[in-house]
Amino acid sequence: MEAIIERVEDARHPDPVARRLRELGFVPDEAVRIVATAPMGGDPIAVRIGFTRFALRREEAARVIVRTDLSRPYPQARPHP
Amino acid sequence: MEAIIERVEDARHPDPVARRLRELGFVPDEAVRIVATAPMGGDPIAVRIGFTRFALRREEAARVIVRTDLSRPYPQARPHP
Repeated sequence: MEAIIERVEDARHPDPVARRLRELGFVPDEAVRIVATAPMGGDPIAVRIGFTRFALRREEAARVIVRTDLSRPYPQARPHP
Repeated sequence: MEAIIERVEDARHPDPVARRLRELGFVPDEAVRIVATAPMGGDPIAVRIGFTRFALRREEAARVIVRTDLSRPYPQARPHP
């Protein structure tokens, strides 16, 4: 596993998007993996927590702070997960 | 900037490599950027802190825990930094 959720940050107060992400399971210490990304850094990106896959806009994903180690900062993006 | 150093972890006690990384400037809250990687996930990887560039083996880099956000977990690797 490549990245661990550190926290979800509020972009504003209140932040319904951040709250919704937490409700969906984006909570500290959960393992997260990027399973697909749009070309050219576009939207959306697909991420997986456990067996659940989510499609997130980058502006949403930007609220999710993750930690990993410098030797593998690349959660594996696979075109056909 | 793409990743911030969270901490350097000791792989053993004592860990001269971890201590040396800290002496070199791998300290919490410093911004770090991957500037080049060997093909096929090999060694070394080149990282930059400020204006200083380091070549690290992956086993060394693995001690450096970084944080970033889910929308850009990819410190930009550039072939000719």
